[in-house]
Amino acid sequence: MNIFKVINPPQSAWDSLIERPSEQDSDIEEGVRDILRNVQERGDAALREYEKRFDGASLSGGFKVSEEEIAEAGDLVPEDLKHAIATAYSNILKFHIAQLPKEIRVKTSLGVTCVQKSVPINKVGLYVPGGRAPLFSTVLMLCIPAKVAGCEDIILCTPPSAEGKANPCIIYAATLCGMKNIYKLGGAQAIAAMAHGTESITRRDKIFGPGNRYVMKAKQIVGMSQVAIDMPAGPSEVMVLADETSQPSFVAADFLSQDEHGPDSQSILVCSSEIIAKAVESEINRQMTKLSRQETIAKSLMHSKIIVLPNRDAIARFANEYAPEHLIISMQEPWAMAEKIYAAGSIFIGNYSPESAGDYASGTNHTLPTSRWARSYSALGVESFMRRMTIQELSKEGLEGIGGAIVAMALAEGLDAHAAAVKARIEK
Amino acid sequence: MNIFKVINPPQSAWDSLIERPSEQDSDIEEGVRDILRNVQERGDAALREYEKRFDGASLSGGFKVSEEEIAEAGDLVPEDLKHAIATAYSNILKFHIAQLPKEIRVKTSLGVTCVQKSVPINKVGLYVPGGRAPLFSTVLMLCIPAKVAGCEDIILCTPPSAEGKANPCIIYAATLCGMKNIYKLGGAQAIAAMAHGTESITRRDKIFGPGNRYVMKAKQIVGMSQVAIDMPAGPSEVMVLADETSQPSFVAADFLSQDEHGPDSQSILVCSSEIIAKAVESEINRQMTKLSRQETIAKSLMHSKIIVLPNRDAIARFANEYAPEHLIISMQEPWAMAEKIYAAGSIFIGNYSPESAGDYASGTNHTLPTSRWARSYSALGVESFMRRMTIQELSKEGLEGIGGAIVAMALAEGLDAHAAAVKARIEK
Repeated sequence: MNIFKVINPPQSAWDSLIERPSEQDSDIEEGVRDILRNVQERGDAALREYEKRFDGASLSGGFKVSEEEIAEAGDLVPEDLKHAIATAYSNILKFHIAQLPKEIRVKTSLGVTCVQKSVPINKVGLYVPGGRAPLFSTVLMLCIPAKVAGCEDIILCTPPSAEGKANPCIIYAATLCGMKNIYKLGGAQAIAAMAHGTESITRRDKIFGPGNRYVMKAKQIVGMSQVAIDMPAGPSEVMVLADETSQPSFVAADFLSQDEHGPDSQSILVCSSEIIAKAVESEINRQMTKLSRQETIAKSLMHSKIIVLPNRDAIARFANEYAPEHLIISMQEPWAMAEKIYAAGSIFIGNYSPESAGDYASGTNHTLPTSRWARSYSALGVESFMRRMTIQELSKEGLEGIGGAIVAMALAEGLDAHAAAVKARIEK
Repeated sequence: MNIFKVINPPQSAWDSLIERPSEQDSDIEEGVRDILRNVQERGDAALREYEKRFDGASLSGGFKVSEEEIAEAGDLVPEDLKHAIATAYSNILKFHIAQLPKEIRVKTSLGVTCVQKSVPINKVGLYVPGGRAPLFSTVLMLCIPAKVAGCEDIILCTPPSAEGKANPCIIYAATLCGMKNIYKLGGAQAIAAMAHGTESITRRDKIFGPGNRYVMKAKQIVGMSQVAIDMPAGPSEVMVLADETSQPSFVAADFLSQDEHGPDSQSILVCSSEIIAKAVESEINRQMTKLSRQETIAKSLMHSKIIVLPNRDAIARFANEYAPEHLIISMQEPWAMAEKIYAAGSIFIGNYSPESAGDYASGTNHTLPTSRWARSYSALGVESFMRRMTIQELSKEGLEGIGGAIVAMALAEGLDAHAAAVKARIEK
């Protein structure tokens, strides 16, 4: 099939080129609000009804995955997959331990000490979708940073099958990460439970993880007033930057790996010549026939794009404007190119760093901002599970030293009680 | 006046004790949405109309503060206030420079390098309220971290007077911080302009700063889908932890300095005995008579509380449950107490660290999470103006090393194109 191609588009066309496939989700808002309200009011009883209705699961015995289910899951996961998960676990753990922030302590004036300290968020909730593909890799990407951050009270929610079971790979990965509290809860009702609390689930301080549009809408709503959320979310996307040093067969493979995620995924190739554009396109058509999710891929290729730009600066500017979730730099001097990028979720350098490496096992987190949110939101990491708090201590001399400035500013802002709080101490 | 007091409340009463004065803002939502829509559709013309209507200002000459206005502002600010601002500037700058995050680089496996790098957010928008009190201290608290972070494109919006002028102290403080782009725009229309862009204002990636309920509601709405925001906001609040080593007159002064902010401010004293509670209460009544904002203070004292708890552990647990914006620890071994705290915006240690020190000049940022958001949100700092991005580079050997794990996990998740992207490279 033909992929949309544009050669040296004028700046005026960029706005339309960076647009994502539009998502209409206002139609589901009312339904999601109903679920949120119902769970808030009726707690576990509402959760049981929704699990019956949406997942077909009868959970009269409770939502928590039992010790027996954990043991059973361990038996069901094949050994070679356990080895693969162990490799991923080790790399993700190493990279995330290195992210632990250090305390900062500065004497700003004589007798005035300021401290910035990062502390773990106390109660966190992780959501891992089930459905067609059990995303046990997401379990690692959420549980490892939460554990490294030192969060005390971590729960994981994941939808059960119609038999009332959570996916064994998900249970296995969570248990490997030291998780004790895994709940069989999915969809907007799981988000409602974590945001508002029920008899079984204690209300969370922050909620993390991907999900379908109902989950996303629920997170968006509770995030406005109830509980912090990790980031806004949209369909997955990749941008590949390529020049004559790239391998068209590799680029094509990265394109297709993105497109198999879902019909609303988007892949963008930005390259320096039409020759590369055509070589990649023909590779895509060749490789596509060998893949199992061809129908999904064909749909998402409909909104994929190939864009030829005249030079590296224009390519970097376009990448920053688009702000891709994943950015593969298959170019000469890829690190110099990466230096120009400030708006991407995660960057993949050179010909041997496919996006799937970061999705699973290189060590970086695969929870990343989509839909241009990489202009302002961070990749998920240990700090996403912590909060920065400041502390200050002034000695009497310290307060005497800066007290005059505080009083002058407070009075100029019309706040004389602020000034009085200094005077009460200095005059004492 | 009598302040609400409770002695050793049972755990079951805590939920009601941590409640904030309720805010009803659904009544303004429709009006704010109108403003947002109108500015998005009609740009500068709508901004001019709203500035006329809400601030009484005719801004036919444009919104930007001119060179002449900047020079004029410099002349209008008294010298002693300039000195005070310089002291504050220096301390805030020192503490924020120390916050600049370092790059993290880890070899997770042979031939697999992962990097976490913090980069400045490109286009940021700062909002500084005008109104009764010109909050020029907020200018320092927003501009300094934005500049230290290295944001390239920073604008500041602040409402004009009816004469079409921005407050000179605000202009002076912004200019001191190196700001070039100051706009006379206030209210929800300023937020709309920064979120959507107009002819005069380029759309922002993230918006910061306090404001009245219209500003807050507008930030909340655009934050859902359009642009990142710093944090949710509510009325200011302080909690003082006191024992027999505290000075009742200091505690009372801190209480009152919080209460003068507005009728919806809240002050909470948590202490270890009824004797301290009574001593503080009588000091509040004594000091109050000397202050200019007595009416405001009397209103906010109506929802202030004094709570006596039996021991330090209970006090720390209550503080974390309440999650105060400001937490003053006037107790024996205050640092040991601070170690127990994970949910506060900024902590003030000992008898000589009044909240007003942090509001103006100690060096910490005064933009802090309120309304229990200190359970999950950070104090504003340099990192609030940056985003964390990850980078990975795999050599061919690196990919060969972890490729098996990637392929096994991808296939188990049903994603064969992800596996193919690895195989295409290894088999080459």
